[in-house]
Amino acid sequence: MLKAIRILGIDPGSRTTGYGVVEQTGFDLTFVGCGVVKSTPELPMLQRLKEIYDGICGVIRRHEPHHAAIEQVFVAKNPSSALTLGQTRGVLLLAVSQFAMPLQEFSPKTVKQAVAGYGQAGKEQMQQAVRALLKLSATPSADAADALAVAMCCANHLAVSRAADRVK
Amino acid sequence: MLKAIRILGIDPGSRTTGYGVVEQTGFDLTFVGCGVVKSTPELPMLQRLKEIYDGICGVIRRHEPHHAAIEQVFVAKNPSSALTLGQTRGVLLLAVSQFAMPLQEFSPKTVKQAVAGYGQAGKEQMQQAVRALLKLSATPSADAADALAVAMCCANHLAVSRAADRVK
Repeated sequence: MLKAIRILGIDPGSRTTGYGVVEQTGFDLTFVGCGVVKSTPELPMLQRLKEIYDGICGVIRRHEPHHAAIEQVFVAKNPSSALTLGQTRGVLLLAVSQFAMPLQEFSPKTVKQAVAGYGQAGKEQMQQAVRALLKLSATPSADAADALAVAMCCANHLAVSRAADRVK
Repeated sequence: MLKAIRILGIDPGSRTTGYGVVEQTGFDLTFVGCGVVKSTPELPMLQRLKEIYDGICGVIRRHEPHHAAIEQVFVAKNPSSALTLGQTRGVLLLAVSQFAMPLQEFSPKTVKQAVAGYGQAGKEQMQQAVRALLKLSATPSADAADALAVAMCCANHLAVSRAADRVK
């Protein structure tokens, strides 16, 4: 019997971090949950990092994923925004590490290709593709859709690797 | 009676993070401890961030500082190193936040000015100045000396603020 694997996709942002959880059984993919972890812009960075960390830990406890996936950074426009994004990624990766989940990173192009079939897909195209593929009754927000897309890309990747293992 | 305040200075680096703890009573400054938290270069970033986080949490539990200080980034040469440094800073700042310590940030120039009396002081000058001011029997490593210097700069700053409050 095929084992179900839960995958958490993360789309990091210092204001809004998107998350999406999918469950994969063989090549079958089902939606588990999605949403955003927000930090309060008025607070100092110190408190905001704690909000993001506590938020993602809550998501992990609630959905109990086995695997995590994140987008490779597509290096930020300038060193200052790269530093801020790096701080956010740092606390998110720490949570993944503390829950002992394996992590895979995918380029934005690979994610778009896997989900929308087109490496240059725009935000709306991604939201529509995620909604259609997961048979959702509503369109997820752009951040949640991006996170679901990373999780779906990872699911594809894991399914293909396992299928290749069986052929060997 | 003047209350003693313990200050933790942090010099973040993805391979080696320096830390230094000083205790301040009025304008008196004494050395408490210093060293480095290392991460294993051969491990994936996920595990390295956990090593850094666990390391700094251990330092905080051992020395019980009341206050933390860190250098402002002096924005890294390129977005990619800014992202890596950001991830390290993220987990360090999370630890400071979880132990509910106030944090102050100082520019490298302010730190050098405060400790060596000269904003362009080199690594060795900083190590010698830290050793002399704290009456250490040995010269601390460059990373530990930088961290002690940030803690000393913060101590100065706090002493001056308190003195100013008493004058009001």
